Amino acid sequence: MISPTRHFARVDHDRHARRGFPEVIYCEGKTPQQVISIAREILSCSGQLLATRVSPQLGRRFRNAIRGAHYHAEARALTVERKPLPKHGGTIGVVAAGTSDIPVAEEAVVTAQIMGNRVERFYDVGVAGIHRLLSIQKNLQRCSVLIVVAGMEGALPSVVGGLLDKPVIAVPTSVGYGASFGGVAALLAMLNSCSSGITVVNIDNGFGAAYAASLINRQIR
Amino acid sequence: MISPTRHFARVDHDRHARRGFPEVIYCEGKTPQQVISIAREILSCSGQLLATRVSPQLGRRFRNAIRGAHYHAEARALTVERKPLPKHGGTIGVVAAGTSDIPVAEEAVVTAQIMGNRVERFYDVGVAGIHRLLSIQKNLQRCSVLIVVAGMEGALPSVVGGLLDKPVIAVPTSVGYGASFGGVAALLAMLNSCSSGITVVNIDNGFGAAYAASLINRQIR
Amino acid sequence: MISPTRHFARVDHDRHARRGFPEVIYCEGKTPQQVISIAREILSCSGQLLATRVSPQLGRRFRNAIRGAHYHAEARALTVERKPLPKHGGTIGVVAAGTSDIPVAEEAVVTAQIMGNRVERFYDVGVAGIHRLLSIQKNLQRCSVLIVVAGMEGALPSVVGGLLDKPVIAVPTSVGYGASFGGVAALLAMLNSCSSGITVVNIDNGFGAAYAASLINRQIR
Amino acid sequence: MISPTRHFARVDHDRHARRGFPEVIYCEGKTPQQVISIAREILSCSGQLLATRVSPQLGRRFRNAIRGAHYHAEARALTVERKPLPKHGGTIGVVAAGTSDIPVAEEAVVTAQIMGNRVERFYDVGVAGIHRLLSIQKNLQRCSVLIVVAGMEGALPSVVGGLLDKPVIAVPTSVGYGASFGGVAALLAMLNSCSSGITVVNIDNGFGAAYAASLINRQIR
Amino acid sequence: MISPTRHFARVDHDRHARRGFPEVIYCEGKTPQQVISIAREILSCSGQLLATRVSPQLGRRFRNAIRGAHYHAEARALTVERKPLPKHGGTIGVVAAGTSDIPVAEEAVVTAQIMGNRVERFYDVGVAGIHRLLSIQKNLQRCSVLIVVAGMEGALPSVVGGLLDKPVIAVPTSVGYGASFGGVAALLAMLNSCSSGITVVNIDNGFGAAYAASLINRQIR
Amino acid sequence: MISPTRHFARVDHDRHARRGFPEVIYCEGKTPQQVISIAREILSCSGQLLATRVSPQLGRRFRNAIRGAHYHAEARALTVERKPLPKHGGTIGVVAAGTSDIPVAEEAVVTAQIMGNRVERFYDVGVAGIHRLLSIQKNLQRCSVLIVVAGMEGALPSVVGGLLDKPVIAVPTSVGYGASFGGVAALLAMLNSCSSGITVVNIDNGFGAAYAASLINRQIR
Amino acid sequence: MISPTRHFARVDHDRHARRGFPEVIYCEGKTPQQVISIAREILSCSGQLLATRVSPQLGRRFRNAIRGAHYHAEARALTVERKPLPKHGGTIGVVAAGTSDIPVAEEAVVTAQIMGNRVERFYDVGVAGIHRLLSIQKNLQRCSVLIVVAGMEGALPSVVGGLLDKPVIAVPTSVGYGASFGGVAALLAMLNSCSSGITVVNIDNGFGAAYAASLINRQIR
Amino acid sequence: MISPTRHFARVDHDRHARRGFPEVIYCEGKTPQQVISIAREILSCSGQLLATRVSPQLGRRFRNAIRGAHYHAEARALTVERKPLPKHGGTIGVVAAGTSDIPVAEEAVVTAQIMGNRVERFYDVGVAGIHRLLSIQKNLQRCSVLIVVAGMEGALPSVVGGLLDKPVIAVPTSVGYGASFGGVAALLAMLNSCSSGITVVNIDNGFGAAYAASLINRQIR
Repeated sequence: MISPTRHFARVDHDRHARRGFPEVIYCEGKTPQQVISIAREILSCSGQLLATRVSPQLGRRFRNAIRGAHYHAEARALTVERKPLPKHGGTIGVVAAGTSDIPVAEEAVVTAQIMGNRVERFYDVGVAGIHRLLSIQKNLQRCSVLIVVAGMEGALPSVVGGLLDKPVIAVPTSVGYGASFGGVAALLAMLNSCSSGITVVNIDNGFGAAYAASLINRQIR
Repeated sequence: MISPTRHFARVDHDRHARRGFPEVIYCEGKTPQQVISIAREILSCSGQLLATRVSPQLGRRFRNAIRGAHYHAEARALTVERKPLPKHGGTIGVVAAGTSDIPVAEEAVVTAQIMGNRVERFYDVGVAGIHRLLSIQKNLQRCSVLIVVAGMEGALPSVVGGLLDKPVIAVPTSVGYGASFGGVAALLAMLNSCSSGITVVNIDNGFGAAYAASLINRQIR
Repeated sequence: MISPTRHFARVDHDRHARRGFPEVIYCEGKTPQQVISIAREILSCSGQLLATRVSPQLGRRFRNAIRGAHYHAEARALTVERKPLPKHGGTIGVVAAGTSDIPVAEEAVVTAQIMGNRVERFYDVGVAGIHRLLSIQKNLQRCSVLIVVAGMEGALPSVVGGLLDKPVIAVPTSVGYGASFGGVAALLAMLNSCSSGITVVNIDNGFGAAYAASLINRQIR
Repeated sequence: MISPTRHFARVDHDRHARRGFPEVIYCEGKTPQQVISIAREILSCSGQLLATRVSPQLGRRFRNAIRGAHYHAEARALTVERKPLPKHGGTIGVVAAGTSDIPVAEEAVVTAQIMGNRVERFYDVGVAGIHRLLSIQKNLQRCSVLIVVAGMEGALPSVVGGLLDKPVIAVPTSVGYGASFGGVAALLAMLNSCSSGITVVNIDNGFGAAYAASLINRQIR
Repeated sequence: MISPTRHFARVDHDRHARRGFPEVIYCEGKTPQQVISIAREILSCSGQLLATRVSPQLGRRFRNAIRGAHYHAEARALTVERKPLPKHGGTIGVVAAGTSDIPVAEEAVVTAQIMGNRVERFYDVGVAGIHRLLSIQKNLQRCSVLIVVAGMEGALPSVVGGLLDKPVIAVPTSVGYGASFGGVAALLAMLNSCSSGITVVNIDNGFGAAYAASLINRQIR
Repeated sequence: MISPTRHFARVDHDRHARRGFPEVIYCEGKTPQQVISIAREILSCSGQLLATRVSPQLGRRFRNAIRGAHYHAEARALTVERKPLPKHGGTIGVVAAGTSDIPVAEEAVVTAQIMGNRVERFYDVGVAGIHRLLSIQKNLQRCSVLIVVAGMEGALPSVVGGLLDKPVIAVPTSVGYGASFGGVAALLAMLNSCSSGITVVNIDNGFGAAYAASLINRQIR
Repeated sequence: MISPTRHFARVDHDRHARRGFPEVIYCEGKTPQQVISIAREILSCSGQLLATRVSPQLGRRFRNAIRGAHYHAEARALTVERKPLPKHGGTIGVVAAGTSDIPVAEEAVVTAQIMGNRVERFYDVGVAGIHRLLSIQKNLQRCSVLIVVAGMEGALPSVVGGLLDKPVIAVPTSVGYGASFGGVAALLAMLNSCSSGITVVNIDNGFGAAYAASLINRQIR
Repeated sequence: MISPTRHFARVDHDRHARRGFPEVIYCEGKTPQQVISIAREILSCSGQLLATRVSPQLGRRFRNAIRGAHYHAEARALTVERKPLPKHGGTIGVVAAGTSDIPVAEEAVVTAQIMGNRVERFYDVGVAGIHRLLSIQKNLQRCSVLIVVAGMEGALPSVVGGLLDKPVIAVPTSVGYGASFGGVAALLAMLNSCSSGITVVNIDNGFGAAYAASLINRQIR
């Protein structure tokens, strides 16, 4: 009899063809064996691998098991890049409001880079000292798409969006306490932005923001 | 036998002595007769009267019943000012993000004025066009306390607070739709502001913000 | 003395330069006089005007007051297009799950068109009859960006996103009842999509989705 | 005097007669002594026992205390099957969206099997790769009732339900993060499904879904 | 050019084959013209029609437009039954807690009947007078599936489920006030039932419960 | 054939025996015919009748249909008292924080009186002027049970409870706005009271508080 | 200089006179030193002491520090009873739905007993096997007040209340998972009970329920 | 190549000039290295430093790294005061309802003191024993601004505010359980206070309240 655990995953090998990038492994709720087994199957027919929400312990185990695996501690992400993708035309700007938002921003950076994008970082430019943001306005405008990461009141995407004619993807973070409700305050602020054209991803989802930004950037002239 | 409706209110005449201003009538949920009867009792021993959440119909009826009553349509407030209070030292600045926030801002203006404060208005300076705010930064700094009114993502108090060394009272408004949840998004944003020292009042509570601002301003040198 | 109502709006004329499109008027919470006065000021230095959340009554009043105003009943939007913008390179696809989602989808269509985009509509392709969606997969893939509008369980963007390598902007609608909580169920579903790279706008915000899509499409080769 | 802890449980021996299966022990919030004592009392007059939410430690203790106890690690369930029930006519299909949903799906499998049902598993067929689901459509249609387990946006039951004329019981899982709110996003999606006739159980309640499915399946010709 | 309103619906004619019943029209958010046009298209290849959430006005208009249309006022549903389906084997019992829950129960009754089921009603048997329920226990046990409709604290399905070995589908209603939150209290109670095997549909969704019950009943010997 | 509407109610005549008072009619969600028909059936074997949430229109219709019916406008309640119950020993005190809370307090008064209780009213004694409450402390202490009605922040029961050794039943009202969420703020405050032994009923449920108070008072020596 | 920690508590010695029982110590959020110091001050002028939410460690420390301290492990409560209060007339019945609800029920038992009440326990009588409850109906009716403790769907107080003419105090527990939201489902169910006259305390607040019951019972003839 | 971690913070040195106090370090979500590096940069051009949410471990590490660092254990705050600010004119009163609220109150005390304010503490004066508060009314009135800290039902600011003509800043704490939802009950109560002019900060935000109070107090004559 075939054990049910043999059926835990059906890797979607067609995904690279359909979506331009192979399946990405979200590690929470999966056992290390499951993760590594899925990783091997993906690498059997793809030159890149990305895994997110990788604990340091899993990262170590991964590096021992998979040749060429690189663990990004701050981003809690793991990459294998056997055949790097060619770089797309534009640049993705990753903007973070505060020091505590950096882990989420770094998840976006790692994701964007392995998907073939040039990335520029703009960190600690929160709205409580608005001149820090205004001093980098021109650098932001040179990017083709902006990922703006903020916790607490989540105001930064509204101000960034109001300054530029580029798409802004807002990432709320769970940074905050009390009535921030684990990032809900920032999420709601971003959904209700008075700057037109802000789009939003889930709380702490730096990966998703970068994936979307990459789908945009790869079409840019 | 005394009818129970005779007991609908015990006017707190001692309040003026204790709190520096007579009882204020919040009109929602009260019948016109109740409102006018309470108003008469307050005016029997005070030279000022303020009523808030006054519908146009109630405003008309009020003006017919009470000598010297003035209805402020945009603020939906009613004042009687038989013995204006002397003006306090400082100025209260009332800042509003968008045109739709003005009714709440005007409730704050009317309240602050009848309580003996000088008021300056700064309207339509939302964060989607941040230069509008920066161009009035010096005027804001001259006020002794700021009331900042905003709906949608409620980001304005964070930016104003970051520019000044004056107390900022934030008023979320119910302006917005969908996931603004009637002002909850703005309320949460203001409670989670990354600018230190912002305090917050209830959604659409321009009155309460101005009352607090007046308690501050009357102590200013 | 200058009446405070003179100060209800500071039109941000610089916005066209900064963001590529003039200020858009969100009509809820504004009086007809305010709306028309703002519209005139925008048209004084711009060849396009867009107003959203326009009731039929306001639409009629608008058309009488402003030459060339066109009211889009289903979208509840109003446009003036004195100097149409040149068309961008790609096409924006607007996908709607059910018949009841069409008003929100049409707001997106009207917005995208006046901002200089080619638009293609794909309506009534909800997931309860998945073959309807599969039969148009190739047409969807030809678009440069997809706006996917759905109420109820909000599953459509996940399925669309999984089929394509193009950016998908999801718009939850307030279509539903009971535990849909006015669109919150769909909003949460979209934020938690298992398809990578979906971004989301506020409930019923067809305008915002199209604005974001246009910022993307104008950069497409 | 009788100690109050003697009264911690009144086993409902009549339940097998009334409901077709003996009382099931939900182990959370009960001490190991309570669980084992209840288990013994049930087995004193029944040939089957099912306990759910059994930690590995409790599982070990159970196996030492009760002859024939079998611990299902992935399902976190424990069974004793001294007199297996005869198999009902139809088959229960258990469908899971992702690898992380498997523990909940397995709880359903274990429950359905001890209650006398044939079970077929269909795992990792989430909507982000819809062809995986379409390729098993005929197998699903052969089942008499489907249990569909999904976290994140919970879209899978809508698509499955739209393909078949069989009852679908949807089980939201707490798989997800941020605005998934521990499974609430999936729960709401399932309650608002646009596919007619989906019914829903509590988050992570694989047991309840299988119990309901068994009440259906035992009546099937 | 083809007007977009021509595209408002793609009737899923294949649905009868796939799911055993033609598409059902949910009328909220659709214009009368849309509803009647969709109805005509469904009837062009099906002998039954069901429309739900039909206001009395729409009901009148419907009866004038469609031959043989029957409006069920209490259920706010409309049926056309040109070729009644043969009756399935079992009986669906519809149980309602209070008088105010009857409209939702009747929506279930009308739906179940047109889908080819025998139906028995058991109304006003709420848990505050438990003997009313116990006196009909045997009648309930004779049904093959039970739909249990309750608002307020939603306790009835737990008690019914504990008495029988038949599947129970719980329907929370929006009957209640204050902290019932439009049916959320009852919904949560039903999802957390201590009786095993209760499944739940959306608030006020009598239609969905009956659809699910019919998918069960049609398989009953 | 018997019409289903004949089955809309099964009056629980045994209730008077079991619970000491006949069934009470909650009128929301019932048609006038249903209400009057139930009222007649109750009066056929009881000397008292209480109906709550009675609109003025329904009140008028009631008085025309039922001999001796008395409509209490402020309480929105209707009573028929053909055989008044003998008075119990103690007195129920009904305390209301503000003028706007009086309708709920009056529902409690009417309920308590028809159930055979002496009632004393203490209105407009909110915590913003605490001396009003302290001046009636002795009168409160003479009651055997207190019903304390308050909206907004719902603080009054905590202060009343801290002053007395009598049971306090707290009734939150929907008085307030913004983040009062229709009485939820007051409800939560009352459930979290720092005064020991406060119990709470649903928002605006003056009837329920008085019913509970009467079950207490009828046992008082 | 006086250290601020000297000011951590002002014991309310007057409370025994005012409320009939000395201050009770709620131990969460207090340091062991604070708890024991407050306990000593209370015992300096009172013959009874009750402390709740006492962890086993704190319980051990307490017993070493305070003569005559008794730790009730299941209730997580601690009592010192140097001068037991005379017993009141009636009996308080404590009813619990399931085995997992017993800790909360025991907190009620310990509280009621030290406050001078006779107590009777009725455990594991949940509504999924309703005959268990009906078999003790007469014993329940002999109590003067009932405390009914239940988690999950919280249906038990509705059924108990419907059977008796005695006050019922409902205690929701945090027993449950998923959409029980830590006891919120049970709390809402109890607040919305269709049985008249149920009052409710906070989640897991066995102490508060017993305190309220004692204020009732001490007045009973 | 410059490591991204070099960019984790851009210290806003201009803040002291703009806001009257240097940047304050909120330590949660930052690594010890980040915190100490930011602290050194602030101290390089300022004579005061405040860090909040400092765990005991971080506090120890801080004291070893930074000369003159003082750790306030109860407040979980750290200060360096190389050049104490001159004292402002008025006094800030810090009022706490219960012993468990003291950590939050102490965070306010430490913040107010380092910002140049005289502070007076009033602890354990909750509303369950209202005479404790009334006995200090005159001392409260002598303060220029009051910070009122309370958990559970959060009623204290309403009573304090009603007694005085001084600004009251309310701080909800997460003290409580069950339906206190980590301080949300207290937060809502404070936002809905019936005492005019209460302003509110985030849950447990003693720091923010003191910062706002200091901005007021520094302007007091």
